[in-house]
Amino acid sequence: MTSPLRIAIVGHGNLGRGVEAALLKTADAELVGIYTRRDPAAVTPVTPGARVRPLDALESDADGIDVAICCGGSRSDLPEQTPAIARFLPVVDSFDTHARIPEHFERVDAAARAGGNVALISAGWDPGLFSINRLYGEALLPDGDTYTFWGRGLSQGHSDAIRRVPGVAAGVQYTHPVPAAVDAVRSGARPTLTTREKHTRECFVVLEPGADGAAVREAIVTMPDYFADYDTTVTFVDADELARNHAGMPHGGFVIRAAETSAGTRQVVEYSLRLESNPELTAAVLVASARAVARLQARGETGAVTLLDVPPALLSPRSAADLRRDLL
Amino acid sequence: MTSPLRIAIVGHGNLGRGVEAALLKTADAELVGIYTRRDPAAVTPVTPGARVRPLDALESDADGIDVAICCGGSRSDLPEQTPAIARFLPVVDSFDTHARIPEHFERVDAAARAGGNVALISAGWDPGLFSINRLYGEALLPDGDTYTFWGRGLSQGHSDAIRRVPGVAAGVQYTHPVPAAVDAVRSGARPTLTTREKHTRECFVVLEPGADGAAVREAIVTMPDYFADYDTTVTFVDADELARNHAGMPHGGFVIRAAETSAGTRQVVEYSLRLESNPELTAAVLVASARAVARLQARGETGAVTLLDVPPALLSPRSAADLRRDLL
Ligand SMILES: NC(=O)c1ccc[n+]([C@@H]2O[C@H](COP(=O)([O-])OP(=O)(O)OC[C@H]3O[C@@H](n4cnc5c(N)ncnc54)[C@H](OP(=O)(O)O)[C@@H]3O)[C@@H](O)[C@H]2O)c1
Ligand SMILES: NC(=O)c1ccc[n+]([C@@H]2O[C@H](COP(=O)([O-])OP(=O)(O)OC[C@H]3O[C@@H](n4cnc5c(N)ncnc54)[C@H](OP(=O)(O)O)[C@@H]3O)[C@@H](O)[C@H]2O)c1
Repeated sequence: MTSPLRIAIVGHGNLGRGVEAALLKTADAELVGIYTRRDPAAVTPVTPGARVRPLDALESDADGIDVAICCGGSRSDLPEQTPAIARFLPVVDSFDTHARIPEHFERVDAAARAGGNVALISAGWDPGLFSINRLYGEALLPDGDTYTFWGRGLSQGHSDAIRRVPGVAAGVQYTHPVPAAVDAVRSGARPTLTTREKHTRECFVVLEPGADGAAVREAIVTMPDYFADYDTTVTFVDADELARNHAGMPHGGFVIRAAETSAGTRQVVEYSLRLESNPELTAAVLVASARAVARLQARGETGAVTLLDVPPALLSPRSAADLRRDLL
Repeated sequence: MTSPLRIAIVGHGNLGRGVEAALLKTADAELVGIYTRRDPAAVTPVTPGARVRPLDALESDADGIDVAICCGGSRSDLPEQTPAIARFLPVVDSFDTHARIPEHFERVDAAARAGGNVALISAGWDPGLFSINRLYGEALLPDGDTYTFWGRGLSQGHSDAIRRVPGVAAGVQYTHPVPAAVDAVRSGARPTLTTREKHTRECFVVLEPGADGAAVREAIVTMPDYFADYDTTVTFVDADELARNHAGMPHGGFVIRAAETSAGTRQVVEYSLRLESNPELTAAVLVASARAVARLQARGETGAVTLLDVPPALLSPRSAADLRRDLL
């Protein structure tokens, strides 16, 4: 039995709390500190007795830490925090702005090499587990099409967009896959689907006192980029109902590869997630990724990697021989 | 553009033909020869113009081959062939006798190290893709249970067992998952299921002239190990119907991980395959595995590995940067 992996959590939002929850279920890793930009006294850990420290203290505490798990937001936190930390510690993040991943990778890679560390970026489910499945799908079945569906799930970005509409006091948005589209893909038919044919959007909105419901609905369903290309429903609820029925963060979806291996011979591979908590599942992937990072670091590797580069066995606490015996 | 990977197929049964089909869909690999223990004239390749050679010639042909894909049977071919070939060529097999994998691994590992080669064993879907998903499931979600269901699919071993029953002229056996068990697992309820509760077995049998149908049925449904622990149905058909409706080799199944990440928070991960041809899908995995083996070999690695040890990116013909840009 080796000593447990010492994990630092950087940033204490939904994901940071999720990493705490994941560590409580992980025998071979322990939480050594939560690092925040806010006053540590303002942060309430999930874990009894957990130490909360200012982010500025992370570098001087580094000797007692094996891997930092960076739980900041992708928009403005991770582009700064992950490369900065990679200069002095092995690090994992869940950067999920898909279009900017190559750029983030390059910056983190340079910092990690300079620091002699391994940095694993974009862990989670999408990017992350879904990416792995998109890769297996096309690598194994070259004559095929890959379809990703999301939902039923709460979309943070679309919920934020609703809340910026004048007259909206609060609201949430759920993304749903269209059942007929999913069925067509599962049949192996390889249909061409428009944005509107793949997903619908469902909004629950609390109006401000005196707001015009019809105008709010129109502003939402016609919003470019977010809603205009989808069939969107808007349901008005009161604040109580929003708190009672829409406080969770469920999500999920599926990656389907539909392919032919010879004329007329269809093969359909489907990977699906049904998550009662998106941040807790994402956090679970981050913790297993931290284990892999510690092992790559121990082998003397440096630089940025993603889950696509990590042998599955490195994510498990068990030995390769045990995995072969029990899981193959 | 590097030169295509030169693949030798060893053994020309269902899987060998499947590898031919897979190579016809693979731009970066080519078939250089089919090696058989039979008279080469007795083997009919799928690929126009393919060269069929005696197995004895494989070692002297080795200079023109990058990876041998061993397509023999797990019971008696692979335990001999894979280690023998690993002494002079990088090799991939689909050894699927689960209980004997550790022993096969050790023998192939010793031979591959002696020969300075990489050997990837037990590629396919189970073992193979299902194993990978069992591993991700338990590594990411430690507080959970993993369930593997097979079917609807043709079971070769059980079909062989039926055909050994006196009075049976021909027959096939399909394995079916029990829908209620699958639903219970998908709900996240983590039920404990007996063998009988998980799968049913369905047999289509052609009787020999004058055979006693009732006696045949009884002999099948009470057969220890194969059928006694299952609810089994036996349907008698004529040879025409068997040929018309039961000549394919469909299979598939699912691996489900049902877990909690905090008290009461359920997460369900499901991986499923619906295969119109079991050997063609298995072969597709073998071809991608051969690509990974060639790369590990080029890095100077030696010894036995399984898909659990292979970074997903090594299975793809595309560069790591392209995969990050397009699939993460
Ligand atoms: N790859 C995937 O599948 C996946 C899935 C889900 C999410 N993600 C990514 O994960 C990122 C983080 O998500 P999240 O839900 O954890 O974001 P969040 O709750 O908004 O937290 C982000 C940061 O904001 C700060 N913060 C949190 N609560 C605060 C408060 N009450 N007042 C002021 N600051 C506060 C925290 O930093 P300090 O403690 O330093 O203040 C925290 O690190 C997202 O941006 C997304 O990109 C990825
Ligand atoms: N991991 C997985 O998911 C997975 C899935 C499916 C199958 N498998 C494995 O794959 C193995 C091979 O399956 P298969 O369906 O290809 O077996 P198969 O058709 O019985 O072929 C096995 C070998 O028998 C010989 N053979 C084939 N046709 C013959 C004929 N007409 N007369 C005499 N010999 C013949 C061939 O060797 P020669 O050419 O040298 O005679 C061939 O390599 C199975 O044993 C199973 O273990 C694994």
